[in-house]
Amino acid sequence: MNCNTPTDICFSFAGFQKRGGATSVHADGWGIAFFEGVGTRVFLDPQPSCRSPIAELVRQYPIHSKNVIAHIRKATHGRVALENTHPFMRELWGRYWIFAHNGALPGFGRLAADAAKAETETASGFQAVGDTDSEDAFCWLLRQLRQRFGAQPPARDDLFAALRELSIEIGSRGEFNYLLSNGDWLFAHCSRQLAYVVRKAPFAVAHLADEDVSVDFAELTTPADRVAVIATTPLTDNECWTTMPPGSLWLFVEGEVLMQAPTVAAPPRTNSADCC
Amino acid sequence: MNCNTPTDICFSFAGFQKRGGATSVHADGWGIAFFEGVGTRVFLDPQPSCRSPIAELVRQYPIHSKNVIAHIRKATHGRVALENTHPFMRELWGRYWIFAHNGALPGFGRLAADAAKAETETASGFQAVGDTDSEDAFCWLLRQLRQRFGAQPPARDDLFAALRELSIEIGSRGEFNYLLSNGDWLFAHCSRQLAYVVRKAPFAVAHLADEDVSVDFAELTTPADRVAVIATTPLTDNECWTTMPPGSLWLFVEGEVLMQAPTVAAPPRTNSADCC
Repeated sequence: MNCNTPTDICFSFAGFQKRGGATSVHADGWGIAFFEGVGTRVFLDPQPSCRSPIAELVRQYPIHSKNVIAHIRKATHGRVALENTHPFMRELWGRYWIFAHNGALPGFGRLAADAAKAETETASGFQAVGDTDSEDAFCWLLRQLRQRFGAQPPARDDLFAALRELSIEIGSRGEFNYLLSNGDWLFAHCSRQLAYVVRKAPFAVAHLADEDVSVDFAELTTPADRVAVIATTPLTDNECWTTMPPGSLWLFVEGEVLMQAPTVAAPPRTNSADCC
Repeated sequence: MNCNTPTDICFSFAGFQKRGGATSVHADGWGIAFFEGVGTRVFLDPQPSCRSPIAELVRQYPIHSKNVIAHIRKATHGRVALENTHPFMRELWGRYWIFAHNGALPGFGRLAADAAKAETETASGFQAVGDTDSEDAFCWLLRQLRQRFGAQPPARDDLFAALRELSIEIGSRGEFNYLLSNGDWLFAHCSRQLAYVVRKAPFAVAHLADEDVSVDFAELTTPADRVAVIATTPLTDNECWTTMPPGSLWLFVEGEVLMQAPTVAAPPRTNSADCC
């Protein structure tokens, strides 16, 4: 979720929580990170979210945030364990970066191993703690960014261009749907499957796809509010979700799409709205 | 807390939680980190722990861990904000490191600024996200360790020796009581005030100092269990807490003291047990 005003995620999380072991197979742990300014809180649980006491707290306790990344895990690479639970966090350029990945990267091991060997000699840091390809890919991304930009953070457009190149490189080695945020910018890469909806005035009633729960956003918002929600599969069944084309990188800022670029050689097909 | 078998901290936390705004003045946020193997979960809240819904969850939800670091904050440097809430986390050598600090470091700014300037050119990383002297000191420690040992983690004794030197350097610039752990080792530096207790067989009844709550550890443990609890002020009023001498670094492993060394020029006074 990326918004222009601190917003709680209780409604969306109620449906999301169900997918962790109840309405979908992603039962191997879950996690959620909330940015509040530059600070971040990460809640992780290797238990399925549908029966996690921590998930229950998150569902009921309205934490207001402009950027939230949540993940439910189906373990494909790396055992079910706390250290393998997304989202992952690292600090770079004096900011926390949160990363969650969907997909498997069978061809990434060689690239990561070669890169790690070269970089070990320069002690550039960012080593995986667990044994998922996802955390490996996140660390590789951050090492590449630090090597490219040094100790000073790049401008937003330069970072977008770099992430696009790096996403092309990793994306050629497997499925690399990911979300990455520093609390201001939310990057979303669609390798195969991601969709988003932007909620803005006039707000309407939304109904969850995974549970019979509705909310009337008109009662909870001001006309200036804008909220983007990005998910592998739409979380609601009566809103206009846009399917992102496979092989595309997106940048969300203040609840709207700011940049978009293809990450496959052939230009991706035109965006299609699924339902409107 | 450092133990030889995964243990929940619910009892100690009940007393600790009270100190965050009820029985002491540390009302400017609180946090707790649990290691589970190499993984870690960090719960942070800029609210006082005595009325935090997240603290209530932690008090009631038994997370079993061999190393736990908790902190309640009285803001002396840096505003009350999530990014300034202890404990702090960074990854180094493919392991998470958790750090909490008590005390003020008025003389540390110059050292940190000079070091950061020199290190910026080498892009060695570890920059503070918030604006506390504590996080600055933690990042400085990690930069020094990485510069000293490179990309490979040092042996435990070498790390202890390095931390001792670095603690002497920072300790000369202010009050530097800290706890630092990677999930296997718990380093505790007493600049002015720290105490510990080791619970082992035969276990007995312990009674909290901050709340009228008792627990009979004999009912909850096996004879092989060993649990060290370290705190600024003893958490119980009927156990034998040992006061650490000012200017001393300690290493706890598997629930016992493994190493200890002075960090002041003059040898510290002999350890004194407060109550037995």
